[in-house]
Amino acid sequence: MTYCLGIITHSGLVMAADSRTNAGVDYISTYQKLFDFSNPGERVILLCTAGNLSVTQGVVSELEKDLKVQEETNLHNITCMYEVARYIGGKLRQIQQYDEAWLKKDGIEAQCTLLLGGQIHAQTPELYLIYSQGNFIHATPDTPFLQIGETKYGKPILDRTLSYDTSLESAAKCALLSIDSTMKSNISVGPPINLILYEKDSLMIKHRLRLRLGDPYLAKIRQLWEESLKQAFDCIPQINWQYREDDSPENILID
Amino acid sequence: MTYCLGIITHSGLVMAADSRTNAGVDYISTYQKLFDFSNPGERVILLCTAGNLSVTQGVVSELEKDLKVQEETNLHNITCMYEVARYIGGKLRQIQQYDEAWLKKDGIEAQCTLLLGGQIHAQTPELYLIYSQGNFIHATPDTPFLQIGETKYGKPILDRTLSYDTSLESAAKCALLSIDSTMKSNISVGPPINLILYEKDSLMIKHRLRLRLGDPYLAKIRQLWEESLKQAFDCIPQINWQYREDDSPENILID
Repeated sequence: MTYCLGIITHSGLVMAADSRTNAGVDYISTYQKLFDFSNPGERVILLCTAGNLSVTQGVVSELEKDLKVQEETNLHNITCMYEVARYIGGKLRQIQQYDEAWLKKDGIEAQCTLLLGGQIHAQTPELYLIYSQGNFIHATPDTPFLQIGETKYGKPILDRTLSYDTSLESAAKCALLSIDSTMKSNISVGPPINLILYEKDSLMIKHRLRLRLGDPYLAKIRQLWEESLKQAFDCIPQINWQYREDDSPENILID
Repeated sequence: MTYCLGIITHSGLVMAADSRTNAGVDYISTYQKLFDFSNPGERVILLCTAGNLSVTQGVVSELEKDLKVQEETNLHNITCMYEVARYIGGKLRQIQQYDEAWLKKDGIEAQCTLLLGGQIHAQTPELYLIYSQGNFIHATPDTPFLQIGETKYGKPILDRTLSYDTSLESAAKCALLSIDSTMKSNISVGPPINLILYEKDSLMIKHRLRLRLGDPYLAKIRQLWEESLKQAFDCIPQINWQYREDDSPENILID
């Protein structure tokens, strides 16, 4: 499994991904799932991948190949993020079409999803979720985050602490805690964690972090979060079992 | 969808359930999913249900019928919780067998899962998860909670705050926050919330709560939890982007 998320705020983007893949519990490996295709000073393009590894690696290889041979259309000359999403969706369809019949024959899923975030020139930064079918949606101020893979365990903290107005530093912290929550509850998501913060209009990545298994920073963050969460939990008064619906508001909580 | 959970601690049991059912987004209803079959002073038997409503209602009706007609084997004369789980699993198989062919014909899922918690006489309280196939597992001190239905959103808070040594009052608070987290992240889980706390060896239910939609108590708990969680989040230092793996521990966190 995999967990990746992208966050867009008024001041930029955060992209984060775990690195665990598994084909059954006895075949667990580590693969990078966050890729940087930026051309510093001119554009930032970040991609997260989830799903069938042969398909997602195929997509990344095709993107790299087009860049290398300076194909007429490539990630560094497409003029807007919408067209970048369309181009990557097309690559996804192409790989799936090539492999589909052979995978289907043996009941193997070719499904995958991608997160695409970035900014081209002075245009607004954008964040897209590209579906396995090659179509896509983009994040908006109302829904400033998108997730792929094992998304549920890490969603409550995003729902409670994140908005389009959240500072970029807090959004990055939130992303790290969202991934950590997922790792704690699901062993198929695991380190290294890759995390990138992109400041709007900087057109280059200045903040990136890779946290390995057993990394003391990750351990410290987890320990602090568990302590803070326990304190938060202790702050909630105990349940008032005598409470009835027609009680006056003063009776709602007891200590 | 549904979310139910059961918690067993050294001092008793907590059982909790939401009340929302949906057959598509345009057919959402309210049904009780936490049932009390106790015989106060002699035994406590609590049941939570998730899955196909016609099957789970069928199981509950069969259990009630056996009690009413004082069937040779019924919930009030079985001598241990293990045999109660086996008996309920049998009812589940019976209903599914009766309806299966007709449901399958139209591609309708007959799957359901149950949580069973209780105590008979001076025996130890037990908590079971009965699978759709009628087999079951029971909770142990190592894994003191069991969940059915939409389980993922509410699991992180259980993983972080709950153990077999947690006080029963804290376990009840934790159950309420776990359900609230799920309701916040998934609209297919919704109030009224039913919550029961059972004190070991009391052989009767003294603490129960039903919280309806818009209930000020529920709103207050949610508001307090969101505030506490935000404070907890603010307590975590910002990410140190300069951190490298070979840094000395003092460099791990910056404020």
